[in-house]
Amino acid sequence: MSNRPSEFQLIAELFAPLAEAPGALKLTDDAALIAPPAGHELVITTDALVEGVHFLADDPPLLIAKKALRVNLSDLAAKGAEAAGYLLALSLPAGIDMSWLKQFAEGLKQDQREFGISLYGGDTTSTPGPLTIAITAFGFVPKGKMIRRANAKPDDLVFVSGTIGDGGAGLALSREQHDVSHAVRDFLVHRYREPRPRLALGLALRGIANAALDVSDGLLADLGHIAETSGVRIEIDAHRLPLSAALQAVWGTTNEARVRAATSGDDYEIAFTVAPRFTADAVKAARNSTAITEIGRVRAGQGVALLDDQGREIPVPAKGFTHF
Amino acid sequence: MSNRPSEFQLIAELFAPLAEAPGALKLTDDAALIAPPAGHELVITTDALVEGVHFLADDPPLLIAKKALRVNLSDLAAKGAEAAGYLLALSLPAGIDMSWLKQFAEGLKQDQREFGISLYGGDTTSTPGPLTIAITAFGFVPKGKMIRRANAKPDDLVFVSGTIGDGGAGLALSREQHDVSHAVRDFLVHRYREPRPRLALGLALRGIANAALDVSDGLLADLGHIAETSGVRIEIDAHRLPLSAALQAVWGTTNEARVRAATSGDDYEIAFTVAPRFTADAVKAARNSTAITEIGRVRAGQGVALLDDQGREIPVPAKGFTHF
Repeated sequence: MSNRPSEFQLIAELFAPLAEAPGALKLTDDAALIAPPAGHELVITTDALVEGVHFLADDPPLLIAKKALRVNLSDLAAKGAEAAGYLLALSLPAGIDMSWLKQFAEGLKQDQREFGISLYGGDTTSTPGPLTIAITAFGFVPKGKMIRRANAKPDDLVFVSGTIGDGGAGLALSREQHDVSHAVRDFLVHRYREPRPRLALGLALRGIANAALDVSDGLLADLGHIAETSGVRIEIDAHRLPLSAALQAVWGTTNEARVRAATSGDDYEIAFTVAPRFTADAVKAARNSTAITEIGRVRAGQGVALLDDQGREIPVPAKGFTHF
Repeated sequence: MSNRPSEFQLIAELFAPLAEAPGALKLTDDAALIAPPAGHELVITTDALVEGVHFLADDPPLLIAKKALRVNLSDLAAKGAEAAGYLLALSLPAGIDMSWLKQFAEGLKQDQREFGISLYGGDTTSTPGPLTIAITAFGFVPKGKMIRRANAKPDDLVFVSGTIGDGGAGLALSREQHDVSHAVRDFLVHRYREPRPRLALGLALRGIANAALDVSDGLLADLGHIAETSGVRIEIDAHRLPLSAALQAVWGTTNEARVRAATSGDDYEIAFTVAPRFTADAVKAARNSTAITEIGRVRAGQGVALLDDQGREIPVPAKGFTHF
């Protein structure tokens, strides 16, 4: 493999320049140091992406890097954490060369700038299998202020940021031929490949939202986690689900389309619940970050229901999508 | 795959019981919380293990789990950190069933007990390739007290814990047929499969060692990292290298055997440097943890040299072993 760089070359040329935090020690040590600011706790999360499962082998490496980072930042966002940095464990197949890795590192660099974070360290190993990228992301929250899943209360209103279903439609369009316009296709594929972690919204929702999570497995499946851990029932009004114009152009606006949007994954929006008296605060919080839409309410009980505009429950065969 | 559990089943049955730290939130949230004790910083490190590269497909899952955890704890040990917990990102091929996973979780559980740590969270995904285990480990050190690689000083003495070469010999014996006794084979294979992170020694060396790291790629290669980051030269006396009786039985005690021991990987011992006036403290620190051996000294200059008992440099073709 003449083109395969050594691990030391990789670290020196590509990754050390990304290790901007002082605690990263320029990647010259076994470990890195991180200390939350006074009065803060560390929020930690890990997500692995596997070629052929979470992205395609011929996806641009710059976008693969961004997606790997962003799905982790999205978890921090939903918790109201300020993103600080990440560790990167890369398992590289033989076909990956320096040119691919340079573009991958460029994607990391662009997102470090965009989200104000640093690489803290990592590990690089070879693999006989598919490219596998495991990222652990770190953020800070004031002590006790992380927005949990488990704190939704009956009578809370349910909101979601942005639009839903775009990621799932983008995935479908990137794998199959469909008769849609370039603009529509580009928008949806872009939404799938380059999710936007809603970090500013998450920060603004601290002290306002009772419960939150990021929508990655499908809106209804993820709201099911809030319902289960909080011991409540969640009702979603199908006709209020925010659908992008592009999604409507592909899937329409029937209840079937709405079920599909609410059960396809890869949205990376924030779904959250708010006590009615904080609704105005939530709307204000969103004004400077990401549009939000009220889509339902929390009740006593259990489970998640999708309702039509008459309040009747719409049957949903599978509430989400799993990469497992 | 009738035998393949769902991700939720895995989490509920196998992993939630391991999430003992309050900040792990019983694995019911997108992220976990961790806060260093007052006056402490967090030490973070990540290492991924890939089937076919770092372990063999038919290795016992209990031992694979322990090795994945221990190579990470070994990094914390060398930094003088107190181990706190870990995140686990698992990429599972289709052949992995619940019985395999139960044994894997049992290995994690045993090591959590042994090292006083907790699972904080994780991610499980499928993979079309080999089993891949990425662990991020967390430890605490008093602010400013992490033992660095970059602080070795000329005139420091060089020590290593335990014995070296056993892991490399154990790897060779586990892959090839050799005419050795069962006892010797078992000892060395065990050393390869179940490294012992030297956490107690690392803690005891805080404030005593100037520089330290864990020996994973080969003693000389790893000491090369200390030499490079510290801007010093390190000389190691081949005849003082601590070799186990089992290793001597397989490889002998020639200089060739000593070169091999000093360049094979998977030792997971701590190599460290100490100012001469702290030698007695280092010996005392080791008394209650792991035996240490003085093996050389730090000089002005650069690079690492292995010397024979006449002080002549022994040629070393390759200073270490890389999994990359």
